[in-house]
Formats: sequence, structure tokens, C-alpha cells
Amino acid sequence: MLLTKQLKIINRVSARAFSAKEVPQFTKDRYPVKRGNYNALNDHDISHFESILEKHRVLTGSDTDMYNIDWIKSVRGASNVVLKPKTTEEVSEIVKYCHAQKLAVVPQGGNTGLVGGSVPVFDEVVISMSLMNKIEHIDEYSGIVRCQSGVVLEKLESAVNEKGLIVPLDLGSKGTCHIGGNVSTNAGGLRLIRYGNLHGSVLGVEAVLANGKILNLMSNFKKDNTGYHLKHLFIGSEGSLGIVTKLALHCPTAPNAVNLAFVGLESFQQVLNAFLLAKKELGEILSSVEMIDEPSLMASTTMCNLQSPIQKYPFYMIFETSGSNDEHDKEKLNNFLKNAMEKSIIVDGVATNEPSKMRNIWESRERIAESLLKMGYCFKYDISLPLSNFYDIVGAVRERVGSHAKLVSGYGHVGDSNMHLNIVCEKFSQEIYKLVEPFVFEYTSKLKGSISAEHGIGFHKPKYLHYSKSPEAIELMKQIKNLMDPENILNPYKVLPLS
Amino acid sequence: MLLTKQLKIINRVSARAFSAKEVPQFTKDRYPVKRGNYNALNDHDISHFESILEKHRVLTGSDTDMYNIDWIKSVRGASNVVLKPKTTEEVSEIVKYCHAQKLAVVPQGGNTGLVGGSVPVFDEVVISMSLMNKIEHIDEYSGIVRCQSGVVLEKLESAVNEKGLIVPLDLGSKGTCHIGGNVSTNAGGLRLIRYGNLHGSVLGVEAVLANGKILNLMSNFKKDNTGYHLKHLFIGSEGSLGIVTKLALHCPTAPNAVNLAFVGLESFQQVLNAFLLAKKELGEILSSVEMIDEPSLMASTTMCNLQSPIQKYPFYMIFETSGSNDEHDKEKLNNFLKNAMEKSIIVDGVATNEPSKMRNIWESRERIAESLLKMGYCFKYDISLPLSNFYDIVGAVRERVGSHAKLVSGYGHVGDSNMHLNIVCEKFSQEIYKLVEPFVFEYTSKLKGSISAEHGIGFHKPKYLHYSKSPEAIELMKQIKNLMDPENILNPYKVLPLS
Repeated sequence: MLLTKQLKIINRVSARAFSAKEVPQFTKDRYPVKRGNYNALNDHDISHFESILEKHRVLTGSDTDMYNIDWIKSVRGASNVVLKPKTTEEVSEIVKYCHAQKLAVVPQGGNTGLVGGSVPVFDEVVISMSLMNKIEHIDEYSGIVRCQSGVVLEKLESAVNEKGLIVPLDLGSKGTCHIGGNVSTNAGGLRLIRYGNLHGSVLGVEAVLANGKILNLMSNFKKDNTGYHLKHLFIGSEGSLGIVTKLALHCPTAPNAVNLAFVGLESFQQVLNAFLLAKKELGEILSSVEMIDEPSLMASTTMCNLQSPIQKYPFYMIFETSGSNDEHDKEKLNNFLKNAMEKSIIVDGVATNEPSKMRNIWESRERIAESLLKMGYCFKYDISLPLSNFYDIVGAVRERVGSHAKLVSGYGHVGDSNMHLNIVCEKFSQEIYKLVEPFVFEYTSKLKGSISAEHGIGFHKPKYLHYSKSPEAIELMKQIKNLMDPENILNPYKVLPLS
Repeated sequence: MLLTKQLKIINRVSARAFSAKEVPQFTKDRYPVKRGNYNALNDHDISHFESILEKHRVLTGSDTDMYNIDWIKSVRGASNVVLKPKTTEEVSEIVKYCHAQKLAVVPQGGNTGLVGGSVPVFDEVVISMSLMNKIEHIDEYSGIVRCQSGVVLEKLESAVNEKGLIVPLDLGSKGTCHIGGNVSTNAGGLRLIRYGNLHGSVLGVEAVLANGKILNLMSNFKKDNTGYHLKHLFIGSEGSLGIVTKLALHCPTAPNAVNLAFVGLESFQQVLNAFLLAKKELGEILSSVEMIDEPSLMASTTMCNLQSPIQKYPFYMIFETSGSNDEHDKEKLNNFLKNAMEKSIIVDGVATNEPSKMRNIWESRERIAESLLKMGYCFKYDISLPLSNFYDIVGAVRERVGSHAKLVSGYGHVGDSNMHLNIVCEKFSQEIYKLVEPFVFEYTSKLKGSISAEHGIGFHKPKYLHYSKSPEAIELMKQIKNLMDPENILNPYKVLPLS
């Protein structure tokens, strides 16, 4: 169980592979970044924080180590203090003080992000949301849940499950990540094709602004057209416009039945045809549509010693259904497979609702990332591309890197146009790096794709933002940042490119 | 067909009833509002507009009349010019000029709004989006549609239907309203319980800002986490932050089957129980959940001479299902009704998928608003309330107005917590008005409800905004307005309360 969880997280490592074994170099030494004009923390500041919080909720010294390093060990901050508020008012007091003293601040959720967004770059004050973990209310009629932002996703899932509901997002990191972090990064995940993104599901937020003021945008309603819809400024802005302290989330009814099909296909065009047929025939019960190419499946079966129920096709797909009636869903899924075979869209396949068999199928998908890492150095990209050109980039990169790469593979959430592109080499080399970047970003940009489909921008990607956003859009982002945080104390060095 | 359309629109008249027979008084005379410090239009301006557009797309004189009056004839502007651009670049040129000349501007879609948001208050330049009506691309694989903002909703619906898709919103005004107007007002409508709101469905927008710059936030992807999610600033801000010129919308697969049940219930608690059971048993196929109280149904059957298949229950509900398999859906619906009857949740009911019978059932719901207007003067409110207290407000208002009212009724989209509350009296009187307002807003505010669930704020409701939004939220709205439109030329006198 834990293993699967870790594998899912590994699956999300992006842009380049990092060694997870050692403590990384300090970010300030490893990357060319200059400290902002903030004050340095002093003893008086610590005393003041201890007066706001209890003493044991103000961590210093080596107690701050784990908060300074991100999960994939790509960055390491040098913060001297971690604060653990329990209430919005405490967050407000902390930020108000930091604002007055010009101390920079990093809000931190479960610290499972993959772009270095949730740890300090220099000596920023870390505000850990881990004790803001109260679920305040679950309304079983409307399905609306109100909670603090530090609730761990899996705990929220268990709590709403008891009321016959599910959280509308599912992530590999759910045992660790916070729902507030999910909101702040607009996390995507495995249920997006069915339940949509968080801009639709989050009904309200409460946030502490850069000046310490509490902004109450909570709502228990799907319909509320009273003025500008400000909450969206906090969904996906990675803590740089405010610290999300509470939220209201709409949770759909939990399905009674889950079924899975794993199929083989002869071409990418048939992948598209199968997706289209699945949308028509499975419609409202479709909950996942994944694509795996042959090199990806080969990697996971070989490197992780897995058995695939079908083999030797250029493409594979996973279709998951979730519905209220198992018999109906099975019938729909079987009809879909029969029709797809009659039309020669799919060549071979299996369907099951046995938990162990479903787990095995998912494992062959989920362990691809781990397997590729085992094969050598892996350049990894998380991009959105138009479906009609979705797989072309794999061929283009394959041609470009030629014999430099051991393997170029593509897999991912084809149902959401989200591709995980991987280039595996013996080891990192500048030559290959230059062949791949900025080629992948330029290629994505030409197709008006997204250079960060679900991971966000954080510390690692601000310099690539212009590949997906126009100068006017970046300019407006900067103006809004300047309006809402003129001293730039909230999560500095992240999201926006330096001026 | 047309009749039904009109009735649906009547259904949405809000806050107070207006006479639709005569030309209303000028807004500047009827309401206490002061003209902003804008320049007045002169002949040179007209010549300049004619140089940007063709001459016949610059309307003046009596040709501007219909653009000066809203659909429900509640407001009347005194604009002397209506411009009809066909391209984003033309919109940009117009706004750039107005910005330089300090001329105020009103963007206008189908002009079906109910809060006076889409017509001039004084002599603002009207930019009609009606010729911006190109559907640029429909991707049948991803379901993503890219179009100009002036496409009429019904035309968009027909176009995507041909590709096996549906638009994720349905409104009574769909024969007239523009998709860009829907986006700018975050229109709700009949499919919201199934497909969510526009913040989830709209994947990208292009907008012309107050200074005439074109802001391209178009995206063809559900997953795009590259920086702040700015598009949401244009969803529901009613043209006051920018003029939406293009958009990308995710359209779900069209259902093959639609079924309807109409049931009678003994109490509002049973309405909630029925909703909960429907969510469990109908889950993914549920597409509408409406509640009608006895006075509301009595009104429509009596005043419009309709026959209800069931009668004499304190509460009625409509459940609509939409799915991919008619047999399955019928079975699920029948099982749901059987279980609900066995549990004494519902007392009586009919289920059908015959189009004429379904139309009849919908008619008894859709003609309520018209019927109430026929009975006398009608105070009307469109509010969101917590489901556990959803119907209490009807009793509270009934008690408060006592014999002053002929009838107090509540009905609406209970599945989305959206109540249409109506107080019918012989005629308007200040005494009743004072009994009802601000009581209804205060009551709604105490329950943290929304005083405008789906209609927006427009010209009529800025003074009520504080009942649903905190001072901090209104302050941030004003700051963002000031950032993005410092000269306040975009749709002035609307949305935000005067400072």
C-alpha cells in the first residue's frame, strides 16, 4: 500500500530526475538566484512568534530540516524557523507581523510538490499548515465539505466516504498532501476526466493576505453570482497571493461499482478512435482513460518484473468506469469492447472488476516512471497537447535524440490531453540536454500546449512560463501580484519570472 | 417552442416585476445615479468608429433604441451609438479609442440579462457582440469548442450536437443569449447539477482590456497549471474587467436517453430524503432535481389551465435523468421510485420518457413564474440557501407578511440549493416592500446564503452586494477593478457599489 503510494509519487517527478538519496545542495548555492531585500530573522522575532503560538509550535534548529527540503530533494532552503498555527487568526497574526517586519514567508502543505514551490529558497519563515487539520462540516445532502486547509487528502477522503461521498480528486500523494496544497496548486490527478478540475469543485476559500488580513470567500453554494469570483485567484497561485486557510469543496456521490478494461491497439489513431467510442458508449460512467505506449509498458514489465495480461502492441489503453449499478456498468463496458473489436479499433483486451486483477493492471501503468528511472538518467516532461498531435512529439524527440537515448516513451492521461514524455539515457549529458530543451517546450508552445499540465511552476519553471503564456498575461499576473503583495513577502522566487 | 422560450425567460425575472408593455423611463431619471466624468460622444468620434468598422456597422439615432432597453424593460439608457465589430482587432481598436477619449463603454451580448447589466445607464458607447458569431473549431475527440463570444447559445448547441456533444449549460433564453454573455455573467441554468458551472467548463478566454490591449488566455486543455488562472476574472465579472471576445469550452458527450419522474411528497424533510436517495441510486445519470411547493403548482395549473398528473401534495419534485443507455436509465429510475415509495419518502408519482408527457411536466414547472405574475404584483428573489434550512424562509416570510400577501411560494433548483422565492400581493405597496426587504436579504445573509444565485449584480443589485460579500472581498474587487480599468470606462455603474 505504502509502496504503491510512493510509486505514484515517483510517477510525478518532472522535468529532470533528482537523486532522492542525499541531502541536496542549498538552493542558494546550486541555482543562480539572488536573495530579496528582506530582513533576517532575529531572536526578537522568534520571541514574538512564541507569543502568538505555543512554544512547541515554533520549531528552530535541526527541527526545521525536513521543512527545508522538498520531497524529490531538488531544492534546499535555509530557513531558521517553522511555525505551526492551528487557526486562521494565528496565521493572520504571523503574516501581519512578517509583513510589518519585512520577513518573507513560505506556506507549506504536505510538501509533496514537484517544482520546488513549497520550501524556502533562502531563509524565509515557513508556515506549516499541518495542524490546521479540522474538518468542520460535511453536508450529506448537498455534498459540501468545509474544512481547514491542512487536512490530509486521504483523511478527507475517509471522512466523506462515511457519508457516501468521494473527494473529486485522487492523487498518488494523497497520504501526505494537504487539501489546501491541492487547492493552492490546482492539483489534477486521476479523477479529473470524470469530476473536472478544482475551479469547478472548490466552492469557497478563506485566505490570509500578504498584509495579514483575513479574506473570507467561503461559500456553501454552487450558485453564487455576487461580484467577482475572487476565489480562483487562490486556486493554482501556489501561495503567492495569499495563504489558503479554509475551503469548501463539493464532493460527488461515491460510486457503487468500479470496472476496468486493459486493451491493445495497433496505432495512435486507433487510440483516438477508442477514446471517442468510449465517450459515446460509456459516457457518464467513464472515470479514467489512460494511454501507454509499448516502450513504457516494456519498461514497467521488464524492470519491475510484472506480467501484462496482453503484450506486443504498439499502444495500450486503460478504461476505468465508476457507476451506481455494477451489472449495468459491466454490460456497457463489455458492449464497448465488443463494438471496438468489431470495428478493429482494439485488437485484444481484458475486462475485470476483481480488485486484485484491477490492481495488477494499474500497477503496470503506475510503475512506468519508477522503471524508467531504473534504466538510467531520465528527462521527464508533463505537458498538455492537442489530441490530434498528441503522440507526434514522441516520434519527433526520438528522431532528434537518435542513438543518444536508450528509450523515448510517452504515456499518460490521454483522456485529459496530458502526456508524460520521457527520454532515458545512460547518464545526464549537456549534449542530450541541449537536444531536448528547449525543443520540447518550443514544440509544445507551437501547438499551443501547456508546458506544465498539472505540476505547476514553483521554483523550477518560472523561466519557462512564456512558452505557455503571452507577455500580456504574464504582465497582468505581475500586476496582480504587486497589487496583492506589494512587498513580495509571500512565497518569493516562485511562479512568476523575475522582472 | 417560442412560447416555452419566452416563459423560461419570464421565469427568470428577479427581485421585482416590471411591466414589459411600455418603454421604460430613462434610467438617469428613474434611479438616483450620477453620470461619471466621461466625455460626450461627438461627430468626430462617430467618424472614427466608421473608419474602424464599415459604416453600416455603426448604428445611430433610432437604430440604437433596442440596444438601450433591457429585455424586462427595467432600465433605459440614452446611448447615441451602437458598434458592431466582427473581429477581436476591431473591438480592440474601438476600446483603445474610447480609452484615449474617455468614453464609457457597455459590451452587450444577447441582452437577456435580468439585472440591467447589459444596457447603458447614460450615453455609454454600446459594443454589440452580435456579429462576433463564428464557431472556429470543434474537436470531437476532446470535446473542446473554440468560438467567438457572440455565438447564440442555441446555435452553438446545434453545431456541437452534430458532433455528438452538448453544451454544458442550458438556459431558457438560449435562442437569444450569447455564449460570451453566459461566460461574462457565469450563467447557471438547468444542467448545472450534472455538468457543473462555467468556471469548470470554460477552458480559455480571449478578452479586450480597458486600454484596448488583447489578452489571450485561450487554452485547449483541461490541465494547464502555468501561472495564475486569470480567465476566471472574466467569468462572472459582467464585462467590467474586459470584453470577452473568444472562448474555449469543454462540451460533454450528448446523452442518448432522457427520462423524467414527477412525484408528490408530504414534507420538506422528505424532499431532502428523496434528493439524497436519488443521488445514491441515480448518481451519474441525474441531470435535474427541481422542487415545487403546493402554492406554486396550484398557481401554474390554475392560472395557465394545466393538468398535473398528481395533485394535492405539499411538495412536488421533478427528477430528470440523462444517460447513454435508455433501458438502464429506466430501470434505475423505476428502482429509485419503488425504493422511495417503500420508504414512504414519496407518496405518489409518474415516470415517463415520452416527449409530450415530459413536456407537460416541465410546463407545470416552467409556467409558475408567469402564473404568479398573472395573480398580481410579485416580489421575486433568486437566492441560494443551505438545504437544511432551504424551505424555512418561505414560512418565515409567510408569517411576516400575513394577510398582506395573496400567496407566498418557493420552488427552484433544489439540487443546486437555488430557491426562487415569490410573494404575490394585490399590488405593490411600500408597506409590503418594507416587510420583505431587506428581510429576505438579511435572512439569506444570516444563513451565509447568496442574494444572487445566478442572475448576477448588474445595475440593480450593487447596493445589496454586502449581504453576500465581506467588506474585505468588496475592497479587493474594487482594487482589481481599479488595476484593470483605472479610468472606469468598462460597464460603469454596474457590479460594484459606489465608493
